[in-house]
Amino acid sequence: MKVQLEKISPQEIEKRSFEIITEELGDFPLIPGTEDIVKRCIHTSADFDYAQNLVFSRDAVEHACNAIKNGACIVTDTNMGKAGINKKVFSRYGGEIFCFMADWDVEERAKALGVTRAVASMDKAAELKQPLIFAIGNAPTALGRLYELIREGRLKPELVIGVPVGFVNVVQAKELIMETEVPYIVARGRKGGSNIAACICNALLYMLE
Amino acid sequence: MKVQLEKISPQEIEKRSFEIITEELGDFPLIPGTEDIVKRCIHTSADFDYAQNLVFSRDAVEHACNAIKNGACIVTDTNMGKAGINKKVFSRYGGEIFCFMADWDVEERAKALGVTRAVASMDKAAELKQPLIFAIGNAPTALGRLYELIREGRLKPELVIGVPVGFVNVVQAKELIMETEVPYIVARGRKGGSNIAACICNALLYMLE
Repeated sequence: MKVQLEKISPQEIEKRSFEIITEELGDFPLIPGTEDIVKRCIHTSADFDYAQNLVFSRDAVEHACNAIKNGACIVTDTNMGKAGINKKVFSRYGGEIFCFMADWDVEERAKALGVTRAVASMDKAAELKQPLIFAIGNAPTALGRLYELIREGRLKPELVIGVPVGFVNVVQAKELIMETEVPYIVARGRKGGSNIAACICNALLYMLE
Repeated sequence: MKVQLEKISPQEIEKRSFEIITEELGDFPLIPGTEDIVKRCIHTSADFDYAQNLVFSRDAVEHACNAIKNGACIVTDTNMGKAGINKKVFSRYGGEIFCFMADWDVEERAKALGVTRAVASMDKAAELKQPLIFAIGNAPTALGRLYELIREGRLKPELVIGVPVGFVNVVQAKELIMETEVPYIVARGRKGGSNIAACICNALLYMLE
């Protein structure tokens, strides 16, 4: 049989995709209020594992939405994650998006201290005065450093999106961040990514619209 | 037991990650010459499905590496994909990276024709005179349009990285691109993403070093 593309308008593609995801999830139990985030992560990855591995602290979504409305800024650990956030929508609320990974002072600090640039970029972010949402999709060391900064009372984020991906310290860094008192959305286990971090930010933004 | 991070230097993290991936892949058969690409996709996603779903046309990797060495440009279908490509390494070979998705003329063309911006941005890319590698991680419509442009003889890419993710026309668009004569690397099925597209570009770049 010849392969053919389904005729569907650009506007319908996303709607239809979410219908398929909802259909295939069936009666899989999702936490009320988190469905849009879970489904968007599946939409971004085509990976239904996110129905199981996403963990939300109590009222994390509501808290994050309020923070965005009040002008919270987003700090990412990759420029890729920053690129993936819907700036058109986010800009309505007055916040800025920061990624310090490529900054010269971050590189110098990392070299001087023998730490990753992700760690040094979290230290730089801790000096910001605005309310902050951290979207960590790549570096477990960033998440580990956030844990320390929070424990030391030097940082109190509005939300930590803890979805670094990988094989070394990723699982542990996520567990550590869940031990803190700050609101979090974490993809438990190895999975995640800059795309997932950006997609969770976007899901929050679309919930506000 | 208290959660603890493994002490490991920044330089060692990637090396150790690839060791874990190699270990867990065991004797799973990978096509000789494609191992680095497959493992980097797993590294990027923590998803071992990529060991099974990545399909390479004959000599695709060799052909792509030569194209990059000869100054081929990369066209992506998201700015996120563009952001993820290692520019420091890529710039050594003289090529440029293009993403036309946010261009005003692409938006106008898409509106006028009732197509996605991804389709319109592929039309714009087809006018480039340089040798081209397409890294499609998001829009199946971009891949579908590439198929048409190739079939019509209006485009002859050096490589098509066909890894859009999703639920509508994604599987079909990938099968279509594999029917052409152009070199391809495709993630068969629903999975993929801008991160995977960028990571395949980077894997090719690191093979050249």
